[in-house]
Amino acid sequence: MKKINASIITIGDELLIGQTIDTNSAFIAQELNKIGVWVKRRVAVGDAWDDIWQALDEEGKNSDIIIITGGLGPTADDITKPLLCKYFGGKLIVNDDVLKHVQYLFDQIYRRPGPMLERNLKQAEVPDVCTVLHNARGTAPGMLFKKNDKVFISLPGVPHEMKGLIVNEVIPRLLKEFDMPVILHRTAFTSGLGESMIAEHIKDFETALPAHIKLAYLPGYGMVKLRLTATGDDKEQLEKELDAQFDHLKALVQHVLVTDTDEGLEVVVGKILREKGKTMGTAESCTGGYIAHLITSVAGSSAYYKGSIVCYANTVKEDILKVKHDTLVSVGAVSEETVIQMVKGAIEQLRTDYMVATSGIMGPDGGSTEKPVGTVWIAAGNKEKIVAKQFHFRFDRERNIRQTAHTALDFLRKFILANS
Amino acid sequence: MKKINASIITIGDELLIGQTIDTNSAFIAQELNKIGVWVKRRVAVGDAWDDIWQALDEEGKNSDIIIITGGLGPTADDITKPLLCKYFGGKLIVNDDVLKHVQYLFDQIYRRPGPMLERNLKQAEVPDVCTVLHNARGTAPGMLFKKNDKVFISLPGVPHEMKGLIVNEVIPRLLKEFDMPVILHRTAFTSGLGESMIAEHIKDFETALPAHIKLAYLPGYGMVKLRLTATGDDKEQLEKELDAQFDHLKALVQHVLVTDTDEGLEVVVGKILREKGKTMGTAESCTGGYIAHLITSVAGSSAYYKGSIVCYANTVKEDILKVKHDTLVSVGAVSEETVIQMVKGAIEQLRTDYMVATSGIMGPDGGSTEKPVGTVWIAAGNKEKIVAKQFHFRFDRERNIRQTAHTALDFLRKFILANS
Repeated sequence: MKKINASIITIGDELLIGQTIDTNSAFIAQELNKIGVWVKRRVAVGDAWDDIWQALDEEGKNSDIIIITGGLGPTADDITKPLLCKYFGGKLIVNDDVLKHVQYLFDQIYRRPGPMLERNLKQAEVPDVCTVLHNARGTAPGMLFKKNDKVFISLPGVPHEMKGLIVNEVIPRLLKEFDMPVILHRTAFTSGLGESMIAEHIKDFETALPAHIKLAYLPGYGMVKLRLTATGDDKEQLEKELDAQFDHLKALVQHVLVTDTDEGLEVVVGKILREKGKTMGTAESCTGGYIAHLITSVAGSSAYYKGSIVCYANTVKEDILKVKHDTLVSVGAVSEETVIQMVKGAIEQLRTDYMVATSGIMGPDGGSTEKPVGTVWIAAGNKEKIVAKQFHFRFDRERNIRQTAHTALDFLRKFILANS
Repeated sequence: MKKINASIITIGDELLIGQTIDTNSAFIAQELNKIGVWVKRRVAVGDAWDDIWQALDEEGKNSDIIIITGGLGPTADDITKPLLCKYFGGKLIVNDDVLKHVQYLFDQIYRRPGPMLERNLKQAEVPDVCTVLHNARGTAPGMLFKKNDKVFISLPGVPHEMKGLIVNEVIPRLLKEFDMPVILHRTAFTSGLGESMIAEHIKDFETALPAHIKLAYLPGYGMVKLRLTATGDDKEQLEKELDAQFDHLKALVQHVLVTDTDEGLEVVVGKILREKGKTMGTAESCTGGYIAHLITSVAGSSAYYKGSIVCYANTVKEDILKVKHDTLVSVGAVSEETVIQMVKGAIEQLRTDYMVATSGIMGPDGGSTEKPVGTVWIAAGNKEKIVAKQFHFRFDRERNIRQTAHTALDFLRKFILANS
């Protein structure tokens, strides 16, 4: 079995000065992985001729497939297309199909008045040595080149356009071009134990794993993902073997297992609610709508999610959630009493079966000796019962918000499972 | 002037299979940039001995500073520390300061019962050829190595710990070690014109820029950032020159300029409200709390932001925001009438000066011929006046939500500026 390696090259100064976070590479890696391609390296370089050239040279040696994104826009800082043309020894020619497509987009979709700009027409120019990949979602086409038995594919950096090209053009072509090995993953998601405690708990299992099955630990937001990766030739046999190991692993972490699928807590909670035919809502002070955002990121969440009262101001806690003024004055907004009253008020206002509420100090300001930054109260409940718990996080504002949101979802998950 | 180049190497299979998005590199790049270091390359490799070794060799040739993150956790999939030890020709020894710190964290902060695990104690082992960098936020220390006049720095991959090390340990040491050139950026943020239209509008300006000042276009969410980057020796002179060019650029795009600082719309809107001493709230259907999250991500936003009614279910629109049942039945939730009533109801409920509301179809399901996926209504208003506008986006669910949120913030910004 030959391992098929890929390199991803992303082009653009914005990646090197930290102005943009590279989310494209993760998507490309996921899609390549599904068909058995191992991404060996990811390289980001700036909009500089020599640096791009060097990356093409090096990755052409490292991998069988080289995916290049970015640098194809209509503006002058994009030098990728002429470079690719020279690198692969071609010349730029107008491609009629691309030209028609660009014209169609401008006339029918963007509905721009007046004639197209020279720079937009230029998008229809491609090196005559490439295979053009149709970009249904934008003007810049994908381009496929071959050199020394290696496949180089250049894609626009706009995530939405890149994704369409990967799924509709790149993956089908790679499947025809290469005889792929099988790479399989299984992921178990645990909460309540740190990375080293889990590692200690399953060290015998880990030691006994065969060489073609690897275990990885992925910590995040108070939870740890355990991922098994198997590589082989025979998909059916490999699946059987991997599933046996995965069952063993799941049994070992049964007491802290959240889900055996690689999915977020917002998906897990949604599945439980769907199954039970119940609804939920959120009452958010310190998380400021982030829990609502996580839940509504899931398509179809309107089946079980009704809404959130984001009560950043205390007046909103009083006016809408009916938190008692006395409570806010005597013990403050970050207190057990407040989050319990938030759950109670929000169940009445949003008319849901379940509710989770958060109140805390996310920082950098607002802390005190008694309630330092990172102090958080979370409550979950239904009409019959409400439970609350205090947490202490020690991160920066952004991480505190995310950690609180994930902890709240897990707290709600446990409440639903225990009270339904 | 010698240009100081850096490479960032991130280690971990999770980056190569797309399970984790690399946000560390962006932070590191920003911090390095501030002190005049140009990040030339970013490379991600898996937890494989040969691949890490090769990356160290290559980046040691490409750059003066090599920052390595990840691969330092307490579990068996982390091979980075022994590799670094071998690569730099040292042996692992227990560092007393690190050991004391690990013990302190376990006893005083994590409050773990029982003795420490062998694997936790191992975190206090470092190669005897490195300078230890104190990790105040976790157990894995940073390590600084020198080889052939190049500086190699290894940091843990946990973002919170890495950030602390970069700011408190890495940057001060690099400033002592190198004589840095000056790199300056200016960013103007525009809304309302596409990348190619702006490029056409400012092409003469762009052509006339001197060689040491570069212009880049960064499109995103219906807006375009224009970034000028200048490199030189004399900070004062360079600043004067760059500011003159930037003033020229700003004048050219005056009609679409949102801000001349590299900051998000949520910060821009917050500054305007602070300045005017006014408050705002949000009423979110299709954005599901994402606007609230953007605004509350800004520290101190409680000074002007009161909260959000996330009314994912129509019952919440009726019960809390007093949207008329007849309206929802006759013209539907995604309509001009509904978003106007949402603004009106939310101003009353949240008692704010300004309000913005969203209702739309984010996909992939829920579209119809009349209202396809991507149809969005946005309204903004105060007690005296409410305006609404329809938008059509053509992206996937995630992008539609983000695009709607940013468009809504810009719509509100324009309303406030026109009505105050």
